[in-house]
Amino acid sequence: MLSALGGIDRLVFVPFAVFDRVAYGQAAVGRFEQVGVRLEVATADEAGRRMIEDALAVFVGGGNTFRLLERLRDSGLLERLRRRALDGMVYMGASAGSNIAAPTIRTTNDMPIVEPGSFDALGLVPFQINPHYIDPEPASSHMGETREQRLKEFLEENDTPVVAIREGAWIRIDGNSAVLGGRAGARIFRRDREPEERVPGASLSDLLE
Amino acid sequence: MLSALGGIDRLVFVPFAVFDRVAYGQAAVGRFEQVGVRLEVATADEAGRRMIEDALAVFVGGGNTFRLLERLRDSGLLERLRRRALDGMVYMGASAGSNIAAPTIRTTNDMPIVEPGSFDALGLVPFQINPHYIDPEPASSHMGETREQRLKEFLEENDTPVVAIREGAWIRIDGNSAVLGGRAGARIFRRDREPEERVPGASLSDLLE
Repeated sequence: MLSALGGIDRLVFVPFAVFDRVAYGQAAVGRFEQVGVRLEVATADEAGRRMIEDALAVFVGGGNTFRLLERLRDSGLLERLRRRALDGMVYMGASAGSNIAAPTIRTTNDMPIVEPGSFDALGLVPFQINPHYIDPEPASSHMGETREQRLKEFLEENDTPVVAIREGAWIRIDGNSAVLGGRAGARIFRRDREPEERVPGASLSDLLE
Repeated sequence: MLSALGGIDRLVFVPFAVFDRVAYGQAAVGRFEQVGVRLEVATADEAGRRMIEDALAVFVGGGNTFRLLERLRDSGLLERLRRRALDGMVYMGASAGSNIAAPTIRTTNDMPIVEPGSFDALGLVPFQINPHYIDPEPASSHMGETREQRLKEFLEENDTPVVAIREGAWIRIDGNSAVLGGRAGARIFRRDREPEERVPGASLSDLLE
């Protein structure tokens, strides 16, 4: 992840996906300090909006995607994040922070604990992201849907491709180039097609077209 | 479940939580026929609205809760179902069909594959329902939240109690009386309180107050 910063040694951290933003922000500041990166923690006010305007790089942390999207929209940060990221600011997101980089949050795994007004998100990439992807376990007796079944349900109603990344995988996008990093690989789900496996190191640039 | 019908031998079945409503409806008709109950399958049109108006009992099947709520609202069935159920019509729901009996769908486990306009649901009971409840597995290496963590996140943002029912448990409500049936028990989550276990056969009437 740090290599994506290309020498930038300070980040604006967005903790809005978690209820206790102050504690989450403080914990993140400590962790990033250890690797020589200084964090400023964004707040849901004019100071936070200015931080985003001036940021070279932003990291949006995980938690609940519905809460994150609602707070970003209500505080006026969502549109600013989008504009600045499309302008070249480095955008990094984990879990909920990766979900909102997609056109909508319709492929989040999170519980809809708050109503975000709209599911429309940043749309920094033209595909949906499903983080924490878990493969079906044939032996499971649980009657809930598998993740694969859920993503197929998404494709019954939508025709946007989904990149489902397993724990420990990440996507790095630079202009027209997208690469799958980490160690666990990803699965691509498209309407009317069998899911397709991509191994660590594989290009995902075809999905940017 | 059949005892809840109290001798009624026909039901209106609502298949809207599933994409292929026709196939789902036909499968349900077959299954209920075997136990001597005749099903009429509701459609998303004037005929469907009339079926709900005239029904003595309705069964809302499982699938995706967001899709179910969106289709019910768009077809004008949501408000009719609510009015008729509060008037004494027998309402039965499984999975997504139980989620929408609560004030909102904020405690569904489903993926938000469509935007239902509002998360407000039938509100036939004053508590939230979380079906397919699974207990935390301490040995799991998956980094996604446990169900308990998700419900605690819900309570960070809302103060409605949640009745989380395990696979094979059900709730039967008759006037001011609510009883937990089935074999697996339930867990009650309330803001600022430890989760509380209820065993099969226990009363849930206190939650109706």
